[in-house]
Amino acid sequence: MLAHPDIDLVVELIGGIEPAKTFVLEAIANGKHVVTANKALLARHGNEIFAAAHAKGVMVAFEAAVAGGIPIIKALREGLTANRIEWIAGIINGTSNFILSEMRARGASFATVLTEAQAHGYAEADPTYDIEGVDAAHKLTIMSAIAFGVPMQFAKAYTEGISRLAQEDIRYAEELGYRIKLLGITRRAATGIELRVHPTLIPARRLIANVEGVMNAVLVKGDAVGPTLYYGAGAGAEPTASAVIADLVDVTRMHTADPEHRVPHLAFQPDQLTDVPILPIGDVVTSYYLRMRVDDRPGVLADITRILADRDISIEAMIQKEPPEGQDRTDIILLTHRTLERNVVDAIAKIEALPTVRDTIVRIRMEELN
Amino acid sequence: MLAHPDIDLVVELIGGIEPAKTFVLEAIANGKHVVTANKALLARHGNEIFAAAHAKGVMVAFEAAVAGGIPIIKALREGLTANRIEWIAGIINGTSNFILSEMRARGASFATVLTEAQAHGYAEADPTYDIEGVDAAHKLTIMSAIAFGVPMQFAKAYTEGISRLAQEDIRYAEELGYRIKLLGITRRAATGIELRVHPTLIPARRLIANVEGVMNAVLVKGDAVGPTLYYGAGAGAEPTASAVIADLVDVTRMHTADPEHRVPHLAFQPDQLTDVPILPIGDVVTSYYLRMRVDDRPGVLADITRILADRDISIEAMIQKEPPEGQDRTDIILLTHRTLERNVVDAIAKIEALPTVRDTIVRIRMEELN
Repeated sequence: MLAHPDIDLVVELIGGIEPAKTFVLEAIANGKHVVTANKALLARHGNEIFAAAHAKGVMVAFEAAVAGGIPIIKALREGLTANRIEWIAGIINGTSNFILSEMRARGASFATVLTEAQAHGYAEADPTYDIEGVDAAHKLTIMSAIAFGVPMQFAKAYTEGISRLAQEDIRYAEELGYRIKLLGITRRAATGIELRVHPTLIPARRLIANVEGVMNAVLVKGDAVGPTLYYGAGAGAEPTASAVIADLVDVTRMHTADPEHRVPHLAFQPDQLTDVPILPIGDVVTSYYLRMRVDDRPGVLADITRILADRDISIEAMIQKEPPEGQDRTDIILLTHRTLERNVVDAIAKIEALPTVRDTIVRIRMEELN
Repeated sequence: MLAHPDIDLVVELIGGIEPAKTFVLEAIANGKHVVTANKALLARHGNEIFAAAHAKGVMVAFEAAVAGGIPIIKALREGLTANRIEWIAGIINGTSNFILSEMRARGASFATVLTEAQAHGYAEADPTYDIEGVDAAHKLTIMSAIAFGVPMQFAKAYTEGISRLAQEDIRYAEELGYRIKLLGITRRAATGIELRVHPTLIPARRLIANVEGVMNAVLVKGDAVGPTLYYGAGAGAEPTASAVIADLVDVTRMHTADPEHRVPHLAFQPDQLTDVPILPIGDVVTSYYLRMRVDDRPGVLADITRILADRDISIEAMIQKEPPEGQDRTDIILLTHRTLERNVVDAIAKIEALPTVRDTIVRIRMEELN
């Protein structure tokens, strides 16, 4: 197939890196167009693959690689082409969104819901890629390259999953008017590109906060259109097939056109890619939810707020619970204003060292998405 | 401009029918491509315009004509090309969605909110097209033609606006778990195509029920992808410009391609258009919210339910309020299961003729959108 002269186009739906990578590169080398749903392959080896395709003048189409049922690649590359993209925030892993939805709706623990999801086939036997954010980071890496004209840099993505998320944080978030979602976020900041996947508090009134179950949604902020949202099934045989067929039609329409007139693989021509760096997570500026267990004693809050103030971290909201009957420890929940992650990490270490603070501090990032 | 041989493409942003129609047809006759944001022109004269463009081998691009900031035309024509579209339901008029959002949030009357909206420039001095559903019907006509491969038939669209919507119906809907939105709905039914704009009760938990203010959203149900939703700004200078520029890029990419390889204007080639009829509103099957004011007297409900049962209209939910202190009349609110509109109209006439029923009956259509 990869060599036969009668074959113009190869569809790769094997998944994984090898032998998919060898097959795709060989098809390209033989002058064949490629349609693929392989997000891992593109996120990790996309630069090599697209360079080869560009040199050969063939197309590599990959709508099915990101949020299958949602034509988000087309929207980003073509529909929003007039926009300077400011940021993208997406629920792009159905398994983890299903688990979070069930945890919130039923008050069940992560472990309980995961076990059920595995029994029902919503989660794989080895769920690591889904629940630890790796799958979302693959998709985010691809969208980031399209949005900002940077090479694919999956290795520099920050990835934190939902496996350590506690039920009480979902409840406290709710009390404060927020939902917790596993978001993939990429943003053009002043000094670089943010590329991060992690549990995130978002205002409950945002449309994307109300995306439940295995559904996916991608929120794109363009400078001209403002916020736009794209919602649909992220996986499954039929939604994936829908995206593959749309790619087949696109490639067929464009294959007689001069390669210079086709939509570039990553929206930008290879010689226009920028070398803006991916920011280390410590350099990211965002807001934070902090939960700490403290002794119910005078001066505790003063010590904590002093440590925060010394690092220019200002507090947006706070809940201090009364200690449960017969206990002398209580929870303090703080929401901070936007601040540098590095400063928060430093403050957390200092607060954890206080003799009145018990356990480790829970830290969840927070985004207003407006 | 329309005749100059150096000009390849004309952008029409005049709005209205004339002189836009003459200009567009003349540009096409002279072999020029056209980019337009003119929904009224396309909904009313699209068949003539697209036939002329097809005969001349030029493109007419119109992403800006429907929900400016949302690349919905591209999603329908290209992204979902592998799908048989089952239905589309859209919030596609920002002014009326703003008014409904304010009425619900503040408990204000239609007239109050409209006056404020006019003062703030959100509604025009003559708001008829927006609040009576005409603007939404223009956009719906265009989407329907793309989704189902039928000619544009704006004249056959059923159009009912929000100007008679009462505050109490918004409150009763809320009590029953629904929101009222002005929806444009087009559906492929067994005997024809539904094409209708009217206030609609939709379950409050649906994402589209939570689209507030001037924002637009289009829910598209495809047989392969299932439900997908597209959300963004529907109007405004920058979102419209974003769509116009995307069209310019598209036309520029495709203009060297053989016309047979381009995306057809209405997704279907002209010789594939079907002559499936647009259904008269009486032939539409949907559910209904009925509010009636009745004397608080034995037998009233028996008479009403008998009239409904005789016409095979079954009841899904009912609220009967206690009469307010010192009054002997009360409100009955009924939600029906899916039934033929003609039967409901007939039942309403019979119920209104009962001596125990006061005032006219309020009837609002209802859609589950699943």
